[in-house]
Amino acid sequence: MLDNLYIDDLILSAIKEDMPMGDITTDNIIAPESRSRAVLLAKQDAVIAGLDVFERVFRLLTADIAFKRNIEDGQHIKKGDVFLEFEGNTSAMLRGERTALNFLQRLSGIATKTFEFISKVKGLTVKVADTRKTVPGLRYLDKYAVKMGGGQNHRLCLSDGVLIKDNHIKAAGGIKNAIHQVRGRIPHTIKIEVETETMDQVTEALAGGADIIMLDNMSLDMMRQAVRLINKGAIVEASGNISLDSIYDVASTGVDIISVGELTHSVKAVDISMKLL
Amino acid sequence: MLDNLYIDDLILSAIKEDMPMGDITTDNIIAPESRSRAVLLAKQDAVIAGLDVFERVFRLLTADIAFKRNIEDGQHIKKGDVFLEFEGNTSAMLRGERTALNFLQRLSGIATKTFEFISKVKGLTVKVADTRKTVPGLRYLDKYAVKMGGGQNHRLCLSDGVLIKDNHIKAAGGIKNAIHQVRGRIPHTIKIEVETETMDQVTEALAGGADIIMLDNMSLDMMRQAVRLINKGAIVEASGNISLDSIYDVASTGVDIISVGELTHSVKAVDISMKLL
Amino acid sequence: MLDNLYIDDLILSAIKEDMPMGDITTDNIIAPESRSRAVLLAKQDAVIAGLDVFERVFRLLTADIAFKRNIEDGQHIKKGDVFLEFEGNTSAMLRGERTALNFLQRLSGIATKTFEFISKVKGLTVKVADTRKTVPGLRYLDKYAVKMGGGQNHRLCLSDGVLIKDNHIKAAGGIKNAIHQVRGRIPHTIKIEVETETMDQVTEALAGGADIIMLDNMSLDMMRQAVRLINKGAIVEASGNISLDSIYDVASTGVDIISVGELTHSVKAVDISMKLL
Amino acid sequence: MLDNLYIDDLILSAIKEDMPMGDITTDNIIAPESRSRAVLLAKQDAVIAGLDVFERVFRLLTADIAFKRNIEDGQHIKKGDVFLEFEGNTSAMLRGERTALNFLQRLSGIATKTFEFISKVKGLTVKVADTRKTVPGLRYLDKYAVKMGGGQNHRLCLSDGVLIKDNHIKAAGGIKNAIHQVRGRIPHTIKIEVETETMDQVTEALAGGADIIMLDNMSLDMMRQAVRLINKGAIVEASGNISLDSIYDVASTGVDIISVGELTHSVKAVDISMKLL
Amino acid sequence: MLDNLYIDDLILSAIKEDMPMGDITTDNIIAPESRSRAVLLAKQDAVIAGLDVFERVFRLLTADIAFKRNIEDGQHIKKGDVFLEFEGNTSAMLRGERTALNFLQRLSGIATKTFEFISKVKGLTVKVADTRKTVPGLRYLDKYAVKMGGGQNHRLCLSDGVLIKDNHIKAAGGIKNAIHQVRGRIPHTIKIEVETETMDQVTEALAGGADIIMLDNMSLDMMRQAVRLINKGAIVEASGNISLDSIYDVASTGVDIISVGELTHSVKAVDISMKLL
Amino acid sequence: MLDNLYIDDLILSAIKEDMPMGDITTDNIIAPESRSRAVLLAKQDAVIAGLDVFERVFRLLTADIAFKRNIEDGQHIKKGDVFLEFEGNTSAMLRGERTALNFLQRLSGIATKTFEFISKVKGLTVKVADTRKTVPGLRYLDKYAVKMGGGQNHRLCLSDGVLIKDNHIKAAGGIKNAIHQVRGRIPHTIKIEVETETMDQVTEALAGGADIIMLDNMSLDMMRQAVRLINKGAIVEASGNISLDSIYDVASTGVDIISVGELTHSVKAVDISMKLL
Repeated sequence: MLDNLYIDDLILSAIKEDMPMGDITTDNIIAPESRSRAVLLAKQDAVIAGLDVFERVFRLLTADIAFKRNIEDGQHIKKGDVFLEFEGNTSAMLRGERTALNFLQRLSGIATKTFEFISKVKGLTVKVADTRKTVPGLRYLDKYAVKMGGGQNHRLCLSDGVLIKDNHIKAAGGIKNAIHQVRGRIPHTIKIEVETETMDQVTEALAGGADIIMLDNMSLDMMRQAVRLINKGAIVEASGNISLDSIYDVASTGVDIISVGELTHSVKAVDISMKLL
Repeated sequence: MLDNLYIDDLILSAIKEDMPMGDITTDNIIAPESRSRAVLLAKQDAVIAGLDVFERVFRLLTADIAFKRNIEDGQHIKKGDVFLEFEGNTSAMLRGERTALNFLQRLSGIATKTFEFISKVKGLTVKVADTRKTVPGLRYLDKYAVKMGGGQNHRLCLSDGVLIKDNHIKAAGGIKNAIHQVRGRIPHTIKIEVETETMDQVTEALAGGADIIMLDNMSLDMMRQAVRLINKGAIVEASGNISLDSIYDVASTGVDIISVGELTHSVKAVDISMKLL
Repeated sequence: MLDNLYIDDLILSAIKEDMPMGDITTDNIIAPESRSRAVLLAKQDAVIAGLDVFERVFRLLTADIAFKRNIEDGQHIKKGDVFLEFEGNTSAMLRGERTALNFLQRLSGIATKTFEFISKVKGLTVKVADTRKTVPGLRYLDKYAVKMGGGQNHRLCLSDGVLIKDNHIKAAGGIKNAIHQVRGRIPHTIKIEVETETMDQVTEALAGGADIIMLDNMSLDMMRQAVRLINKGAIVEASGNISLDSIYDVASTGVDIISVGELTHSVKAVDISMKLL
Repeated sequence: MLDNLYIDDLILSAIKEDMPMGDITTDNIIAPESRSRAVLLAKQDAVIAGLDVFERVFRLLTADIAFKRNIEDGQHIKKGDVFLEFEGNTSAMLRGERTALNFLQRLSGIATKTFEFISKVKGLTVKVADTRKTVPGLRYLDKYAVKMGGGQNHRLCLSDGVLIKDNHIKAAGGIKNAIHQVRGRIPHTIKIEVETETMDQVTEALAGGADIIMLDNMSLDMMRQAVRLINKGAIVEASGNISLDSIYDVASTGVDIISVGELTHSVKAVDISMKLL
Repeated sequence: MLDNLYIDDLILSAIKEDMPMGDITTDNIIAPESRSRAVLLAKQDAVIAGLDVFERVFRLLTADIAFKRNIEDGQHIKKGDVFLEFEGNTSAMLRGERTALNFLQRLSGIATKTFEFISKVKGLTVKVADTRKTVPGLRYLDKYAVKMGGGQNHRLCLSDGVLIKDNHIKAAGGIKNAIHQVRGRIPHTIKIEVETETMDQVTEALAGGADIIMLDNMSLDMMRQAVRLINKGAIVEASGNISLDSIYDVASTGVDIISVGELTHSVKAVDISMKLL
Repeated sequence: MLDNLYIDDLILSAIKEDMPMGDITTDNIIAPESRSRAVLLAKQDAVIAGLDVFERVFRLLTADIAFKRNIEDGQHIKKGDVFLEFEGNTSAMLRGERTALNFLQRLSGIATKTFEFISKVKGLTVKVADTRKTVPGLRYLDKYAVKMGGGQNHRLCLSDGVLIKDNHIKAAGGIKNAIHQVRGRIPHTIKIEVETETMDQVTEALAGGADIIMLDNMSLDMMRQAVRLINKGAIVEASGNISLDSIYDVASTGVDIISVGELTHSVKAVDISMKLL
């Protein structure tokens, strides 16, 4: 469930961005007390995500609005489905339509793409995770949509997960030192992940006690080798331009988790239409 | 030029979203005074947009950062190009990298897609315009990127342009009434646009004195007919699921402007890599 | 109707400005559960504007308040009229009284002055418009009050209307160039206005295709001449220190619109008294 | 001196209110690097107030701006005086002009009106004070302007001064009780003022130990009588629709302070022109 | 009664500080519709303060919560007392528990310590006041808690009370000058307090017309001497590292008010337990 | 190093809380251009923390201030030490003094208390950690101060660490289920901690694969038994009213980490004096 605590400010900003001084078309034509019925209509197959935020846009614009859902976030819609019916104040509907759809179409786009990736590795135990490549300001929502599509969240931000990269390793004088140094300074509740590009680095990370080892842009052969080397001694994560075409092969190497930037950085809006009846 | 007035709050939100309590990897490994050099490297051909916001992310994190641009927004990069070089505080670079790239990759994606659409109608006088289908919170930046790609902005929001649609027409009792009613209540500085789906509506809008007539999801034949009918008596805009495949044919009907939602609602991040040297 | 979306933040700021740490008189004397009845009493004739914001001040201070209006915004009150009756929590009434009246008295002052200007040109087709000379932070409310007094809004801000002035003309190398340059870069939904001080400039603006021509501080003779010259080829706006004394003569020159800074920059608060019964 | 701490947020709000998406005229015509010189020119005699906020508007828009003042806040300008000269970025000048003047013209209007009131009682020891009848959001600036005009501030808000009125008296069961009750609950650093309308109330307030006694809307005779009765036992303040015509007579009754709502609730903007050279 | 106007922003900040992206334990285990009953249990004797803010934390997290108080702020709890019972949404209870207790335990700590200080001077007419040594951001709440413990508030902030110290005296050229200078520039509603360290300074402050004279870190003998010297000519306040051990002796010197920094700068959280039943 | 990114808003709030309308003493006595020198003087032995925030208060008030540190955060001061010297604008010093000290004295109080706890277990390998019992709004600073005192941070908030308690266990139907359920839904970068009160629960947590097992309010004997049982199979954390008196014994049981609420919930301000020379 999406939490109003996190989305209300976001929605209000979006509304004010779209309407800094009112909707000069609607405000000058539609009677304030006018009421309408409306539906959401699927123009394509998709996994839906963001119904809470869609509805909340209108609730923040009017007290006179009521919704009837035929579906919940995470479920599938088919082209032609009417999946949400609502009625209430007409002005609020017209004022909020674009903002509400902008949220819903993006989040459903993320959920749908995530589902597509997961479908490719169906039957395997591997997990598909997101990254921090989200749109500025929408981290919470983008990550939520990934979960609705069946994906797993990677660390939410720089404050809640350690990922030791090249530059950290250089600065610390080696992977071992880097792990040791971080371990002594962070909460004991957080795991340590190390990004590796060579088999030597994998070996060093494992010896250093990394909780998670990321195989960054490795070939399938290297990944297989790394999985054997690590041998359950750490969680193994594959990363780096994973596509719908390549994910099955990557998964087949035996890695535990595959993180995919595309889930959130290149989103195709789901085609959804809001019709006033 | 992007205005810090509009982007600073956005950037600070994005930074805090990604780092509510610091970067626990960098903060615990990298010496505060450490300095590095870095470059931006194009991993694909693209039109760049967002260099100001990219640089500003780091400036808001440190006073110790200096940039050297080899290119400006709106220009083309080729795969392999090093188009920005900078040096300064290492921690700031590592902390800001993801946020800065999230902005730059999206905006460049918009500029690049806009350029692709425009390339399809090269030589014709038609203009390609954006819509309000932007990501919540990024309206200013998304519309800026469209211009960098060579596109034109449609109305920025509901407060600065009139677009009379179905429901407005019904409520006002016809197109003529709707135009008349709005004309008397809005600033005299703003034009009136009417959305039409039939030739009768086009006729009525023209007679009513619409400044702009939108042809919504019409067939190519209908568009041609409408253009002849309007005969320069109003600006003619084509709209409705225009794609890279269809835009040339639409443009050939003689419309003045084509608005394309895809420019901003379905963006593919440009592949750009930030390398610390 | 005033939109809580725009006024709530403003009201909360005003309340906190007047009461950063409570109302030390009321909080220490009035029992929290005490209830009262109150009325608004007109101490002069006026056009009322701002009842929504007046009431909202109290609603943001307490859930226990109910109003009965004898009049709506835009209507006339006579000295001695009781035009609003309400009852509810006494503390909220005493805490909110000054802030609520500060809004209502200013907005009614603007509506009343606007009405006076319009009364001077009754029977003529000219429109009276406001300017951007509003109090910082109250643009939305000040412009609303002008409409309640029967006036028309000019552009709301620098983002939604073009007004080409001296310096723009100089920078662009002439009026024609300026119009051409702007036309190619702004949304096609916005008209272009040019400020002129001489007949030559009027001619040039007309030739350049200006949508609106502002006659700035011209003599009555010049205005008449300009109106003839323009001959419906553009909307004609008169501007520059128009007063109650001069507006009829200016209107008689045949201009379409007269913009009056005084409507909002020099406001006399309407004398309204809030009485607890 | 005005404190950026208090005015920066106010200015930024005002700028964004006037320019939610840029200045579409200036941004599309003026070259970003263009520089100009400008002056402020007095179109009438006045007392100036608000130079700090005027300048700060531009400084928040550009780093490239420099000012030379020929006068300071609180000093007099004569019609025709050039009292501020500045040069810097042209775009910033054009974008900020209206907002900066909106502040300066209002604040100078307040200072000028205050000075007029004070001139009427020149030679007498009475002080002229403001009230809480300020424009919502501008309390700090409005009160500052009163001081620049030679006036004195009354309590700044409901949190820093006690003013016991009718309803408080009724609720407490008499003036004595009200004073006693408040005295025991507020900081010992704050005085207690009582509003009185009859001689009995004056007597009671004096007996109750009021620090300040306000004579509300009393006749000149009553005021004289009250002054004699109080006989320096408390500070005496006259209040209630004091005008330029009546202030001398009121002052002559011997009251210590006269508070005047008109100083801030009915302000005439000073006519000041900003000229780009 | 605590005012939501002042505490809602504070609470929301605290909630988001503790939960920038949800409660990953509760959100993944507890069913959203789950309901529970809970109580607050005293683990020690104390004076309670902050029940409004405690309850408000949960109300801001859910509409489904109801409270039954067995006690009000300012009253005493005994070890083992169940003083608040509530039921409602389980997730909200678990998410809000720590934040709500952080407020309640601190405020009750302040009230309890204040009560201890006051108990030491029971029977004497002296008052015990707080200082500005509060936790940044909690001034309103900390001062409220002092009152709940039976204490008196000193000035709330730098804007509502004058306290002339060493450096002010030096800058003004003596106490007399300083008082005179301030008197002419501040609202007539505010008293003037002077900090003194020697008998000479006391004499000078008295002669200068100080309303309040603070005896700063004086010996008991000096305080007694100062009280005699001032002889009701001003309010006398003792200040400077007053402890539970020393307060009785200080009070016995005859001073009117004793201000104690420890009330708010060194707070021991009251041991209170929230139990889900 | 403290990050301005996190503390500037906090400081500005604190300044405005203490000075909503200026410092009426200083502003009316001290010349704006006056400069002074000042020092911080230790009135007791302590570990210092918060110098960055102390200095930043003044920097946000004036550009004219320069500091010379004789010590850094985390180091010890002795009674009588002058550990910071600075000079600059006098008004800023007087206006910021209390706010700056309120931060510094609290943070140093936390660092000092943390150091005392750690001193008790010197030579042992156990770590001393903080809790979420921080003052609302100061989480980032309070946790920073704990580190400066030599302590370790526990999870920063509810979003970055899992702690399964009684109610979670009940809701999930046992510890095993709870762990399993959470494991499948959270980022793979975060460890899972379980709170236990009995040996059976410890056994179950260990079997369920808990990463960290918290022994809540157990007797020393139980803790020893639990440590043996767990036998390095998980990190062992002791918690529950640990005091300076009891920490050595608790540490001797062999637990890995001891979390202490008192570090931040019951802070004694360090006695530090700021002297203007």
